Amino acid sequence: MRAVSSRCFSFASVNMKSRRSWSVTASDLARNTFNPIRTVVESMKLTPNPEKPMIALSIGDPTIFGNLCPSEEIVEAVVESVRSMKYNGYAPSTGYEDARKVVASYVSVPGATVEAKDIILCSGCSCALDLSISVLANPGQNILVPRPGFPLYRTLAEGLGIRTKFYDLKPENGWEVDLEQLEAQIDDQTAAIVLNNPSNPCGSVYSRSHLNAILQVAARNFVPIIADEIYDYFVFPGHEFHPLASLTNEVPILTCGGLTKRYLIPGWRMGWIVVHDRNEALSLEVRKGLQSLSQRIIGSSTILQGALSRILTQTPPEFFQSTIAQVYDNARLAHQLLSGLPGMRPIMPSGAMYMMVGVDMSNFPEFENDLQFVERMVTEESVFCLPGRCFDYPNYFRIVLTVPELQLREACHRISQFCTAHYVAPLALGKEEKL
Amino acid sequence: MRAVSSRCFSFASVNMKSRRSWSVTASDLARNTFNPIRTVVESMKLTPNPEKPMIALSIGDPTIFGNLCPSEEIVEAVVESVRSMKYNGYAPSTGYEDARKVVASYVSVPGATVEAKDIILCSGCSCALDLSISVLANPGQNILVPRPGFPLYRTLAEGLGIRTKFYDLKPENGWEVDLEQLEAQIDDQTAAIVLNNPSNPCGSVYSRSHLNAILQVAARNFVPIIADEIYDYFVFPGHEFHPLASLTNEVPILTCGGLTKRYLIPGWRMGWIVVHDRNEALSLEVRKGLQSLSQRIIGSSTILQGALSRILTQTPPEFFQSTIAQVYDNARLAHQLLSGLPGMRPIMPSGAMYMMVGVDMSNFPEFENDLQFVERMVTEESVFCLPGRCFDYPNYFRIVLTVPELQLREACHRISQFCTAHYVAPLALGKEEKL
Ligand SMILES: Cc1ncc(COP(=O)(O)O)c(C=O)c1O
Ligand SMILES: Cc1ncc(COP(=O)(O)O)c(C=O)c1O
Repeated sequence: MRAVSSRCFSFASVNMKSRRSWSVTASDLARNTFNPIRTVVESMKLTPNPEKPMIALSIGDPTIFGNLCPSEEIVEAVVESVRSMKYNGYAPSTGYEDARKVVASYVSVPGATVEAKDIILCSGCSCALDLSISVLANPGQNILVPRPGFPLYRTLAEGLGIRTKFYDLKPENGWEVDLEQLEAQIDDQTAAIVLNNPSNPCGSVYSRSHLNAILQVAARNFVPIIADEIYDYFVFPGHEFHPLASLTNEVPILTCGGLTKRYLIPGWRMGWIVVHDRNEALSLEVRKGLQSLSQRIIGSSTILQGALSRILTQTPPEFFQSTIAQVYDNARLAHQLLSGLPGMRPIMPSGAMYMMVGVDMSNFPEFENDLQFVERMVTEESVFCLPGRCFDYPNYFRIVLTVPELQLREACHRISQFCTAHYVAPLALGKEEKL
Repeated sequence: MRAVSSRCFSFASVNMKSRRSWSVTASDLARNTFNPIRTVVESMKLTPNPEKPMIALSIGDPTIFGNLCPSEEIVEAVVESVRSMKYNGYAPSTGYEDARKVVASYVSVPGATVEAKDIILCSGCSCALDLSISVLANPGQNILVPRPGFPLYRTLAEGLGIRTKFYDLKPENGWEVDLEQLEAQIDDQTAAIVLNNPSNPCGSVYSRSHLNAILQVAARNFVPIIADEIYDYFVFPGHEFHPLASLTNEVPILTCGGLTKRYLIPGWRMGWIVVHDRNEALSLEVRKGLQSLSQRIIGSSTILQGALSRILTQTPPEFFQSTIAQVYDNARLAHQLLSGLPGMRPIMPSGAMYMMVGVDMSNFPEFENDLQFVERMVTEESVFCLPGRCFDYPNYFRIVLTVPELQLREACHRISQFCTAHYVAPLALGKEEKL
């Protein structure tokens, strides 16, 4: 009785098992959990040109090309942890107190200091987002997600019957949020706003004043924020990362983060939720809810928990600087090489590991849409970029900036050839268009 | 639209956010996800006798007392994996092909051979159970779970609005399933039977013929089985473990397992689902559903995946033998020490790490129920056993058998004192009772 309270039971869609034959169907949760990237990519015909080695600018895994590796220090931290024999048993489902304490001081900044009790360790940032969305929203309610945005938010929410509504980012404004449109999207059933800064796929890093403006919208409408800060501090020279929670003492925030990107260990699966309560708005209920949900899988490996202290306090600063320098160099290189190309509008990122490139589709009349554009770039040039559609944003493609420089150069060169081959100038199209 | 299909939206229970003040409540999923053990234990008054050091026979973590440790071999397997630098990136959400291949050959037995494609790696067996229950059952449907049984099944199902119905185990019959009652529980909305063998909390290990009888019930009614075999091969001399899937070519089975118990590393979080399809009953849909669900958190650390091959193939057999020998010695010791006690009915286990002890409550008229009995044993003797209620089974308590022998002896001695002090013989009660 407790269990079915809000999900009333609809005969139409629940599979009535006939009990007279084997017909084991998948649940709605399973059927509604879909990954837009996978769905889009699987629908594409990707046949590289056999004469050119494939360059995948599509994979959001910074370690895959071998040029970016975690620091020795953190590898040895794990070795020490596992050899200590102190981290074999069950930890509390939210993580060891000591490990949570270390994360608390790592994420604490003036204006947003937290303690061990405010941290929930998770199996990667994905799990942190899963718990955060699940604890705040009921089926039938909605969360607001950015467009373009990381598709996992939809995967997680829609599986559970939580709706997603988009708020728009403005490419011409460094991908800032369209604040009016954001506010207009909020309704009585809005359970949370998901804000991703620095952003995948945009590479944008928001200024303090823009973040303040977003917080004001949230505050005026009493909507809590899920801040996806998995790219925290991953910003290029001249930009600054502001943890969202440091800018408000009014809006309750669940910040999701982890080791994945900054430490270059996506496979290890160490993430966390930081509960930034304000005016006790989240109250005991949401904390207790997170605690309960964490018990479903007890999800963060103790080996990593045992290594956290050394990882978070002893990784040399040069390690981060060197990663960022490489990605920044790549960003400038790609931006420069693609900027001059006909029909391309690369948007220089300020952080994270990606760049969005706009395509003036009207200048490529051969292709019906951006999917075909990207497909054909694979067929002819063996360069694969994720179509904007993966991020609910057509007429763009995303490139990753973590590839080795030579490959990036070669890829941009091939993109250039492709554009030149297929671009049709506005005059030739018989009409005037603004480029 | 896809998302809310089967969970129609009920205004009554979804929190209408007023949008005029901060009132952030937890979702139904969070509120309905509760851990019976925690709920029961938190309701108890546990104040140990300050003159006696506490002995916790309650904790299902075999590593906690330090007498049982993982083998050196597997620690070094992790060291090798992490130092190789080959396992830093994202694995596919179901796990690396190589790691799944190794698990496939580890779990394959005659009658139930599987391949890499049949394996889904998870963050512990809890996560494997979560995915298995989630993929098979919709809100409003039910799964059948054992009584007494491991409470996580209820935690996982009821959070999602999936109901649990109990089937009874018969203590007098080595905790065999009451087959008639099991069959009577199956209805049109039964999505799966959860079978746990060897069992927590019973320590029972089912014979081939009993497993066959259970399979027949499932087959007759076309109900798939989720086989929780996290204690696989953890059986005492004279008993044999039969993987359920090896006994049927008719009933589709999702077997949940992992390294947790046999390898003594509960904190590491490495588990798996083995898909045993039969007559393609699970079909593509359930496989695809598991694949989709695995993308929610990409849950199994690559460091462990990289170590799996060495762990599964090179752990010396003596390691397992030695663990089982210690637990078996403890089982016999505890059974012997508790058998003679007035009002106690210890039931000798055949495997796993636990023993259930029946309490003839009518002979302890001081106590209203088993909770009070257990509470008072803490107050007077500083011995804490989990009350049967944690497993939906009153008038029993569960002791863990992984404690060091001396502590177990001392605990049994204190239990003996406690019983003698509080036992009231049937005659003294003024009525005849069968002991
Ligand atoms: C914006 C964003 N959030 C979350 C994640 C997931 O991180 P994790 O691998 O720690 O689950 C990613 C991974 O690409 C991401 O880009
Ligand atoms: C019967 C049973 N199933 C599953 C589990 C969970 O195992 P894991 O720690 O791998 O999630 C346990 C743990 O105690 C158990 O006793």
